[in-house]
This record gives sequence, structure tokens and C-alpha cells, in this order.
Amino acid sequence: MIRVAILGQGLVATHLVIGVERIKRGELEPYGVPFARYRLPYRIEDIEFVASYDVDDSKVGKSLYEVAKKLVGDLLPVPESLKEIHVRRGIHLGSMKGLPFSVKGLEEELGDLPSAVAKLVDEFKELKPDVFVNVITTEPAEAYHDIEALRKAIERGETSASHAYAYAIAAYAKETGRKVVLINAIPSPLARDDAVVKLFEEANSIVVGDDGATGATPLTADLLEHLAQRNRRVLSIAQFNIGGNTDFLALSVPERNLMKEKTKSSIVEDILGYDTPHFIKPTGYLEPLGDKKFVSMHIWWKTFNGLDDELVVNMRINDSPALAGLLVDLIRIGKALTDKDVKGTPYLLNAFFMKSPGPRGAKNMARIVAYYKLLDWLKELGILA
Amino acid sequence: MIRVAILGQGLVATHLVIGVERIKRGELEPYGVPFARYRLPYRIEDIEFVASYDVDDSKVGKSLYEVAKKLVGDLLPVPESLKEIHVRRGIHLGSMKGLPFSVKGLEEELGDLPSAVAKLVDEFKELKPDVFVNVITTEPAEAYHDIEALRKAIERGETSASHAYAYAIAAYAKETGRKVVLINAIPSPLARDDAVVKLFEEANSIVVGDDGATGATPLTADLLEHLAQRNRRVLSIAQFNIGGNTDFLALSVPERNLMKEKTKSSIVEDILGYDTPHFIKPTGYLEPLGDKKFVSMHIWWKTFNGLDDELVVNMRINDSPALAGLLVDLIRIGKALTDKDVKGTPYLLNAFFMKSPGPRGAKNMARIVAYYKLLDWLKELGILA
Amino acid sequence: MIRVAILGQGLVATHLVIGVERIKRGELEPYGVPFARYRLPYRIEDIEFVASYDVDDSKVGKSLYEVAKKLVGDLLPVPESLKEIHVRRGIHLGSMKGLPFSVKGLEEELGDLPSAVAKLVDEFKELKPDVFVNVITTEPAEAYHDIEALRKAIERGETSASHAYAYAIAAYAKETGRKVVLINAIPSPLARDDAVVKLFEEANSIVVGDDGATGATPLTADLLEHLAQRNRRVLSIAQFNIGGNTDFLALSVPERNLMKEKTKSSIVEDILGYDTPHFIKPTGYLEPLGDKKFVSMHIWWKTFNGLDDELVVNMRINDSPALAGLLVDLIRIGKALTDKDVKGTPYLLNAFFMKSPGPRGAKNMARIVAYYKLLDWLKELGILA
Amino acid sequence: MIRVAILGQGLVATHLVIGVERIKRGELEPYGVPFARYRLPYRIEDIEFVASYDVDDSKVGKSLYEVAKKLVGDLLPVPESLKEIHVRRGIHLGSMKGLPFSVKGLEEELGDLPSAVAKLVDEFKELKPDVFVNVITTEPAEAYHDIEALRKAIERGETSASHAYAYAIAAYAKETGRKVVLINAIPSPLARDDAVVKLFEEANSIVVGDDGATGATPLTADLLEHLAQRNRRVLSIAQFNIGGNTDFLALSVPERNLMKEKTKSSIVEDILGYDTPHFIKPTGYLEPLGDKKFVSMHIWWKTFNGLDDELVVNMRINDSPALAGLLVDLIRIGKALTDKDVKGTPYLLNAFFMKSPGPRGAKNMARIVAYYKLLDWLKELGILA
Repeated sequence: MIRVAILGQGLVATHLVIGVERIKRGELEPYGVPFARYRLPYRIEDIEFVASYDVDDSKVGKSLYEVAKKLVGDLLPVPESLKEIHVRRGIHLGSMKGLPFSVKGLEEELGDLPSAVAKLVDEFKELKPDVFVNVITTEPAEAYHDIEALRKAIERGETSASHAYAYAIAAYAKETGRKVVLINAIPSPLARDDAVVKLFEEANSIVVGDDGATGATPLTADLLEHLAQRNRRVLSIAQFNIGGNTDFLALSVPERNLMKEKTKSSIVEDILGYDTPHFIKPTGYLEPLGDKKFVSMHIWWKTFNGLDDELVVNMRINDSPALAGLLVDLIRIGKALTDKDVKGTPYLLNAFFMKSPGPRGAKNMARIVAYYKLLDWLKELGILA
Repeated sequence: MIRVAILGQGLVATHLVIGVERIKRGELEPYGVPFARYRLPYRIEDIEFVASYDVDDSKVGKSLYEVAKKLVGDLLPVPESLKEIHVRRGIHLGSMKGLPFSVKGLEEELGDLPSAVAKLVDEFKELKPDVFVNVITTEPAEAYHDIEALRKAIERGETSASHAYAYAIAAYAKETGRKVVLINAIPSPLARDDAVVKLFEEANSIVVGDDGATGATPLTADLLEHLAQRNRRVLSIAQFNIGGNTDFLALSVPERNLMKEKTKSSIVEDILGYDTPHFIKPTGYLEPLGDKKFVSMHIWWKTFNGLDDELVVNMRINDSPALAGLLVDLIRIGKALTDKDVKGTPYLLNAFFMKSPGPRGAKNMARIVAYYKLLDWLKELGILA
Repeated sequence: MIRVAILGQGLVATHLVIGVERIKRGELEPYGVPFARYRLPYRIEDIEFVASYDVDDSKVGKSLYEVAKKLVGDLLPVPESLKEIHVRRGIHLGSMKGLPFSVKGLEEELGDLPSAVAKLVDEFKELKPDVFVNVITTEPAEAYHDIEALRKAIERGETSASHAYAYAIAAYAKETGRKVVLINAIPSPLARDDAVVKLFEEANSIVVGDDGATGATPLTADLLEHLAQRNRRVLSIAQFNIGGNTDFLALSVPERNLMKEKTKSSIVEDILGYDTPHFIKPTGYLEPLGDKKFVSMHIWWKTFNGLDDELVVNMRINDSPALAGLLVDLIRIGKALTDKDVKGTPYLLNAFFMKSPGPRGAKNMARIVAYYKLLDWLKELGILA
Repeated sequence: MIRVAILGQGLVATHLVIGVERIKRGELEPYGVPFARYRLPYRIEDIEFVASYDVDDSKVGKSLYEVAKKLVGDLLPVPESLKEIHVRRGIHLGSMKGLPFSVKGLEEELGDLPSAVAKLVDEFKELKPDVFVNVITTEPAEAYHDIEALRKAIERGETSASHAYAYAIAAYAKETGRKVVLINAIPSPLARDDAVVKLFEEANSIVVGDDGATGATPLTADLLEHLAQRNRRVLSIAQFNIGGNTDFLALSVPERNLMKEKTKSSIVEDILGYDTPHFIKPTGYLEPLGDKKFVSMHIWWKTFNGLDDELVVNMRINDSPALAGLLVDLIRIGKALTDKDVKGTPYLLNAFFMKSPGPRGAKNMARIVAYYKLLDWLKELGILA
């Protein structure tokens, strides 16, 4: 059994809990779960959700069933079993600032951040989660790289919600001796923050991140590898993304958009071996598209004899389920890794699953390559047969 | 120095000779040449073209310069050095049947195929090629798998032009003790024909094939691998190709189209691990498109929670230069392999470079994966540092 | 009230009856019904289905409700009111030959075609339809242009099912004095057949056709008009269609495909004013796509200063509902036209709604233009205010 | 003969002068010139360029030949006849602010705007242009609607370059009695500014505008009309544009982007009859794309029976030549209209050729419709036979 706590009960978390419950009941094939074909030490059925945190007043106190009904009730059957877990109030720290939701953080409720962190640690001790999944809305955040600096930021209450959660989780792990996993599926730098990685190492735990690799970015990585392997000279890359979910709404706030842009652009030079002019970023918000975003990409290059070739990719893809499917395996593999005493941040896991793989300075690689490297490593560790 | 003989002086061969000559003169970057970034035992500058064969009356007797001027004179500068090689008459055996060209084969000129084969062997002995590149127009052809059956077909003059060339080349290699390479860049099964592979093995030589992997097929392979790695369930695949070069004209003859279709479809099950409905074949001929074909692809799949995602790929790509760029490396690596006493058909080389990798029964794999496996093998052999 | 009889209870007819019933109940907005915004003499609510004919053994004798449940039950709510009409056996004449369905025609049941025609006329006299909608599967058919020739073909039982239906309908109209409408939504030439048009004229009735203009063809017409208005010189047009409904299955039989091809290609020269190389035809059958076909189009042209521009259009569209929506208005306008004593074949109605507008020799025009010409004509006739 | 003065010697103007000169010499077909198929009172050969204005220090004083060589010398042959005209210093008023060019305006050179305007009027009197073409870089600008307010803005030197030019041109026309044409091919509101229209009316002259309709916008207009005519309910529209010319660079400055956005969005409600969520704006700058921009569009709608259809359009189009081709006819028709004593702003001409047709409050309509309305009007005026 793997006990899982969710941070941010939005669309991704909702797809995650619905999907896992439906797979448990045998109602759903585990499509979109990368390692479903392999025998991992934990089955999907071993995943148990024990807690969920959010700051949205319309969610806090509600059951996951109620939240799910509202978010995807017209699209998916919502299992009754989700009535048992209720959303708890989590950390805000301005992570939803500027968005049209009524929100309040635990730090606002309790007066300061250290009190909120202490309360979280207490709750965690009671709930005993093994794995934490960070899927809060994209927020502005910077890495610290220095534990002392991070600690002071927590004391002053001037940090990101992701960092505050990470800090509380590491404290919980250290104090209880429980080896835990934090999966950071959003752009905030945690697996790329030396300070956070150090805290998790000291707690014999792991932080996986950053920014779950779904949608256009991992595909672009593989397309660029495909071109690089043929020594085609890429002239420029344009990639547009438009969608109607909260993440796209959040990214229409300029400083959040910047967070995403940094993340996405790092693949170009890492994979091609040279930089080339590119425009890769979330482009806009269009409400009717909902969670099914539209992606358009133009890549052109010099082929043999100096001639030009062109590639246009258009996709219409469900944003949140794609990430939810990855989380199912990140939860299972993350837990298996701590069982094998892996600690800190596991680069090869990040390299396949994350847009900005930690640790700091780590390179992006083609996903198809990363996948086989990860397979080999899991076999070496005895996690896969 | 690598001495190269060309079979079929069409667009691909013309791009090959122009590109190599331009690179020799320092006029052209080696884009589209996959291993140009690595240090192979032979440089591109070491490639020397010593002969060219064709059956088109408007080409036989002409210099490669004259042929090139006519085919791509409005698109590319044609180096003067191509004036030195003249097109010789090669084997026809009906390979251009039904196409609007005036053609005659050496077997027609000399009365029968065995005489034509004997003449070719004599010419090869004089010209001393190390590498043969088969880029004749797509022709109907079947594998023999039995040397005796192939020998009898040659005697009767009832075989494909590709098989007749392969037979002559193996004889030349055996008689002279020269280790040679035959690169079969067209769909005719040579590297997948046990008989042909056996003949080359006996001559300490290699046959590389079949069907150079350019265009949509290798990209589809990598896209399918990308989807398979995420356990997305592919519902169907549609892939259209339309172009205006001789190969597309040839493929508008139904039996030739079938040759291509077989080749292309094998990737689906090999990579996904299951078959799924697909429509993958050259679709039509449209003269104004010329050598720059238009490709359109639709792939959709089930993602997590049973929802549907869709991907559309459109490309406008130069058909012949893409293959010519691959040939530059196939020539260099093929020669290096015979230097290392590799014989028969080298699967790992085929797996990256060919649509239907020999030997018979060999599987297709994602190109991104094949590339790294090939790299490792070349390092093991000492061909790459 | 308009009494409607359906010929061919496939997907299109099923969408038509469901949609009309749902609109009657106020459950559905009339999207896809071109003139829903205007006040026509007949409302959608005035449409009443009184009969349906088919040759598929699995449909004949079943209620429209049962047929609809089977065809689209997972996609749409099926109104109970469809339980009242049952499918009658219609004319086959080999129109489903080669397709994997168990079928039998009335002419086979009764021994010869004249008997079948006579039986139909009798049934029509009892059912009193005002409008007939021909949506049988695409069949091979040729125009007669000579009434005597058509009559003899009927006698010999050697004609198309569409022609046999048309003949029976004209006889019914003539014998009863009822002015009727035949809407030919498939490629068989009826509105372009002088003989058929003459028969309808003599019966003070109208035949509308041929081949309902949905999907890529009317869009291509408007795109070409757009380019022509700017004097851009179109170099080539490629248009691919792939789908998984019975019509695509039927078109995978070569002679049927040809029917469609003829229809579609006529737009190029009619609109551009010159012919240009084009590849426009249904391309393949891919079962999982179902009724939602995938269309891909590539058009390029010379712009000012001799430079090349390119346009790629990709669509994923529901094939049958698009046609069903047009039929709703064709039924209403067709009936209104006979009320105004229009007879023969109404070119301006055909020009907007049909791919191959009758009468024989009539030109295609851009749909956007045809629409306004039709509006003007309907106003002139007093059908629109 | 039509004497033409250019305002803004950028890519569009360069394509215009090269194209016209090449057509004069019989070297070029007039593709991209909408009315080339018709017999207008003026032939393309009648166009004579007599002056050109710019503020870029690297252009002022140079011949059009030198400017053209630098801008498109690698793409097009540059006629020698362009050596005779030299770029004069024009109005700046900050229109290039924030862009990486060294610029100076006549108003800076002479100390104030009224002096610059007076100098322009003097030059115009000497050069005697009939038609002025405004193709300066997109600049921020607001309409006045009040002649007095415009006059005061000129006096204070606080207006847009486009308004200053318009003011000078109207003064020149009034003082000399010459009937002139100002074609405003950029987004600045001139034909939509009551004040400017009034000034031109008083001078028996015309102002045509605003913002030449090339690229994605007129195509979107026709696509929306196509959908509206079938009563398909559009759910959302996303349209991305990315290019590498100065106009895209300019539009990466937020306030300029806004100018373009306003222009483009007005088509949605005007044509559909209702507003629908849309994202239509220039999206980014990517230098290697140069003048050949990439456009991607996603439109989806409800079809009959409430099902969803989707359309994706991708284009790779030459931005400047498309506009230059339109200008050839705007010059010819504009002059012909003043010959017929038309004055003010001619809505029907604007409706086909302009993105934001004047006068103020005028509606956008489908281009295919506008074209035929324009044809009718020109016939009525006796301009077309």
C-alpha cells in the first residue's frame, strides 16, 4: 500500500484520483500510465489517497467526490469512494494571486507561515503519507540553493507555496524517520534547488521534479532528437499552446508565463547541441477549449544539399489526464526507490518524466532515450525484473 | 579512398554525387549526413564515384554533369567534376515497365541476362568499386531465400533488376576476393532475402537494406515509440504521401504501390507491440510537387481516463536529398564494416537506416533507439572512438 | 406539414430523423441547418417522416428507433417517436454489391424491376409523400438523357437503384397529380440527367441534386474562389479524405471511388477559370474513424513577384450530420418551390447545396456566392421575406 | 499615367516597386494582383513611382535600387530602373520608437512638425503625385473625428506619422486642386477617422483604408462566412501568426500588438452575427522566418445533432508581396475613382481590400461577397465594362 497526499485539488489531481479508483474497480484500462505493461513492486491498486490540500474556498471542506463532480462530472463517471476524503486547507502564499478565485491559505488563517508549516507537519504525522504530489497552480518561484536562506524565507513567510510544502514534508520525514517522496509536477524549482534536494537527502527521502513532461514539450524533445540524429540543421522552432483550463488562465499572468517559458526552452540546446531561434511558450487562454488544449508547431531545417524541409505538428490533447497518468507511475516508482534507499533527487527518473529534470544543471535528453536509460536503472536496482 | 558505383542515375544518385562533390570543395555543410559530427575512419572527401548504371536512353552515354543539369540544374549548382563519369547501360528486366520513358537493358542489348551479368562482372573487375548503391526506381520483386532458386531465375532472365545486380556484385566480390558493400536503398528485398545474404556472406561482403528510411516512415516509428512509452492506446493511423518525382509516378502503378505499402506497415506492430488499423501508403502522384513531397498524418489514441487525443503531422520535404544524405554515411560505414571483416547483412546498421531492415524476420525499432544501438556497436568494433 | 419518405436508412437518414425529432421537442438547437435563421414557409416542426426504404436485411422490418439505436445509440439520444415508422424493402439493383452486408431488393423479391416499381408507386399513393430523400450508398450510375432509353433500362432491370426510384417517384407524381420533390444527395446523376429532369418537369415536380455538398468540397470551392479573387495562380491541389463509415467502405471499391472523383474535380476549373493539377478523391477506409472523417488538403500558389505560398487544411468532421442538416432545408425549400410551381431542377438551389449541381452542364460556383444568389431568388419568389 | 509617392520604403514598398517594374518589362505575370484579369481604365504599366519617404538613416538618400538590393537582393532580381528614385526624409513622430534602427524624422531635422508638414506640401507640389501609399511600420495611433482637434495635434507635434502625412496630403490636394488618393495600408485609423475623411472630402480626394487585408484575416473572414451560411455554431477561434520581418518585430512591442489585435478581432461578430471567444493576434517574432510568416488557426463548431467538428489551417505565406499585389490595384482603382469624382472614403473598395474598412463604424463582410459588390459598383460607375 502507498499512502498518497495531494497538494492542489485541481483538474490533474481530480483525474488522478478518478482514474486510480476506476482502475481499482476494473472499469478502466491503464492507458496513459507508462509502465503499466511492466511489473513494478507496487500495483496501481496499491495506491491509496489519504489527504488533499487546497486553498480555494469553494473546495476546502468538500469531498473529492464533490470537487470532481463539479470539475469533470459531465465528462467522466465519478466513483463514490471519493466521498471519503475531504479537502484540507493548505498553503497559499499568493500562489493564486491575480486569478478570479476566492482563496485563503493556512498561513493566513493561523497568522504566520511557521505556524502553518508546524500544523502541516502535525497533520502529516497523523495521516502518514508516503508520497506527496504537488500539482498546485503554476506560481512564481525561485531556487535557494542554500538551506539557511530557505529556512529564513520560511520564517519570514516570503517564499513560494511549493517551497513551504517541501520544507514541511522534509521536516515530517526527518522527525518521523519515514522515507518519503515529493513529486513536484509544476515548474517551481524544487528538484533543481540544492537546498530542497539537501533537505530530502538528509531525511533519506527523494524529491522528483520539476514540471511533469506532458503535451508538446516531450514530443518536441523527441522530434529534435530525430532531426539531430540525421544532422539536419534546425533553422527555427515555433510552438504555440492554447487552452482553457486554470493553468492557461494562470499563465496569462505574465510572470507565470515566464516560469513556463524557461522550462520549455531548455530542451532546444540540450538536445540539438546548438541553440537555434525558437518561440516556445504557452500562448493564450481560450475558455471553450477547456482542458483539451490546441498545440501548433512549426519546425524547419536544412537538409542535404542545402535545401529546406518543413514540419508542422498540430495536436488536440487532454492536458490534465496526460499528467495524471504519469503521476500514477511516479508514485509507484518513487516509493519503490525509497524502499531501495535512493535519496536526494533521481536524475534518470526526472529525465523521462519531467520537463526540467533536477538536480540543478542537469540536461534534458530525448524522452525515447531517457526511457530506456530509466528502464536499465530500474533493472539494476532490482525494481524491474 | 572508397570507390563507389551507382545503380540508377535518378534524382537520389544525382543529389548524392552533387552533394559529395560540393562538400569536397568546401561549398556545402554536410547537413543531412547523420554521422558528420563524428569521426569515422573515412571522411566524406574519401568518396570517389567510379561508375554509374542506368537503362534510360536519355541518360546512357551522358555524363553525370549532363544528367544533373537536366534534373536539378534550376535548383542546385552542378560541379564540373561530374563531367568525367558517364552513365553505362545497366539491367532493366522490366523494372521501368509502364512508365513513360524510353528504356533498354543490357540484357536486351546482349540477348540474355547471363551475358549481361557476365559483362557487368567484367566491368566491375576493371572499375574496382568497393561500394555499390542501388537507387533504381521501385520495382516489383520477391525474395528467393534459396541460392539455387535465385541462380535459376538469373539463368532464365526472370528476376528483378535488383537481384540481377546483387548476383553480379557477389560474383565480382567472390572472384576477385575484394570485400564489397551493396547498399539497397529501394524496397526490393535483398537484405531480407536469405539467398542474397548468403551469397554476400560467402564473398566476405555485406548487403545493407532494404529501402532507405527517409521521410515519414522513420518519423512515424519515433512517434509511435513516443506513444508506446506512455502506454497510450493508438486507435488508428492514417498517413498520406503525395509527390511529383519518378518514384511517385512509379508507385501510381498498383503493383509497385503494394511494394511500398508492405514496407511501411511493418513498423506499426513492431513498435507498438500490437497491430492497430492503419492506412500507410504512397497515395498519389501530383507532378507540380516535384521532389518535394507533401505528407499528412493523423494519429489518435486513448489517454488516461479513457479520453481521446489527436495528433496531425504535415510535412513538406525534399525526398531525394534526404536519402542521398543517408547514403553518404552508409557508404562510409559500410566500407568500414568490411574492413573489420563484418559480412552478411548488418542488422544494427539496417535498423537505423532502412525501412525494412534485413535479415528476414528482423524487427523494426524506433529510430532514436536504433541510433544509439548503432553507435554502441560501432564503438565496440573500433569504428567510432 | 411536409410528408417525407427516405430512400436508404443509413447514417445520414438516421441523423436526419433524430435531429428533426429532437428539434421538434425543443431538445436541440438547429445548428447545421443553413436557413434556420430565416423564416421559411415551412418550419422544421412541419417535417413528418412517413416512410423509409432500405435493402439491408438487418434493417428491413425494423423500426427507425431500432436502426438508430444500433447505428448511433452510443452517441445520441434516440427519440421514442421513431418507433412508429418501419423500414420497408426498397430497390437494390446491385447498389450494395461487394459490400459486407446481407441485402435483397424488392426487384429480387418480386422477380423483376417493373413489378418492384409498380409496387413502390402503389405504396407511395397510400403514403402520400411530398418529398423523397435519396441517401442510399454511393453506387455506380450513368446518366441517360433520353427518356426512352431510361424506360427500356427500367424494363430490362438494368439501371441504378437511384434511377429506378426516380422513375417510380415521377410516375407517382404524374398519376396522382401531386407535385413532389426528389432530393438526390448522392453522386448518381439524376439532376444532371436530362431524362430524369424531363420526367419531373412533366409531373410538375422537381429533382434536386446531385451529391450533397458537405465536407471538404464546398470548403475547397470557397478557398479556390478566395484565391481566384486575388489572382493567385494555383500550382496544385491535393485533398485526402479518410473515414470509417459505409460510404468510405463503399468507395474502397474502385468503380464507386471513380463516381466520387468525377464529382469532386469539377470544381477546380469551374471556379479558378483554368485547370490545374489536382488529386481530389476519397482516399481510404479506416474503420475506427467511424463517421468522423479526417481530411487533409494542400494548396499552393504563385503570389505577387513570383513567390510561392502554401496552405494546409486539416479537418476532423462528422460526415453524416453535416448532410442531414442540409437535408432539413432542402426538404423545406424544395416543398416551397413546388408550391410556387417551380419544376424540373432548380439550379440555384443545387448550386449551393450540391457538389455536382444539375442540370447537365451547369457550373460549380463558390458556395459563398451561390448562397446569396439563392437568397435573392427565394426572395424574388416570395419564399423569403 | 499615375504618379505614385510611397510613405515607408520597407519590404512592402520594395516588393511593390520591383513587381511593377518587372511587369512593365514583361518579366513577370501579374499574379497576386486581384483585378489583373479585368480591363481597368489604367494598366499596371501606367504606374509611375515619383517619390519615396522614410526615416531610417540607412535608407534616406539611397536609391530604391540600393534599398531593394539590401532587403530582397538574394530573393528577387532588382530592376536597374529603380536607381532613379531616391528616398527622401519623412515624418517620424516616434513611429519607430523602441525598434533597433537609427531613425530621424523631418520634424526633428526642421525643429517642429508644422515646418515638416509645410516642407512636404512644397515637395508634393513639385512631384505632383496622384496617389500616396502609406506602408510605414505599424505605429500606435488614435482617431480624432474632429478636424480642429487634429489640426491642434499637428501644431503641437503630438500625433501619429500617418496623421501627419494625411494632413499634408489633404493640404496639398486642396491647395493645388489636384484630386488625390491616400491608400492607408497600415492599422492607424485614417479612413475610420471622421476628421481625416472630412479633410479629403473637402479636397475632392479619397482616403482608402485601413490596414491592407492580406494573410490570415481575409481568409478567416471567408471561412467564418462559410460556417455562418451553414448555421454552424462556432465555439472558439484561435489564430496564431509568427514572422521575422520588421512588422512582426514592431508588434512584439505590446502597444503596437494591440493596434493589430483590435483590427483583426472585429471580423468575428461582423460576420458570424454573434461574438464567440477568440484569440486572434500576431503572436511572436522569429527572425529566421523572415517575410514568410507561419500562420496556424483552430476553429471548431457545433454541427447538426450537437456534434463537434474541427478545422485546422496552417499557412506559410509571403507577407509583403501579398500586400504589394493589392496595392497595384488600389492605386489603379483609387485613381479611377477620383476621375469619377468619388470623394471621402469608398466603403466598397475598403470592404474587399482592408482589414478595418472605413468609414467609422463600417462593418466587415466576407471578402468573397465584398468582391462581387465591388465589381458591381465599379461597373455602375463605368470603371469596369
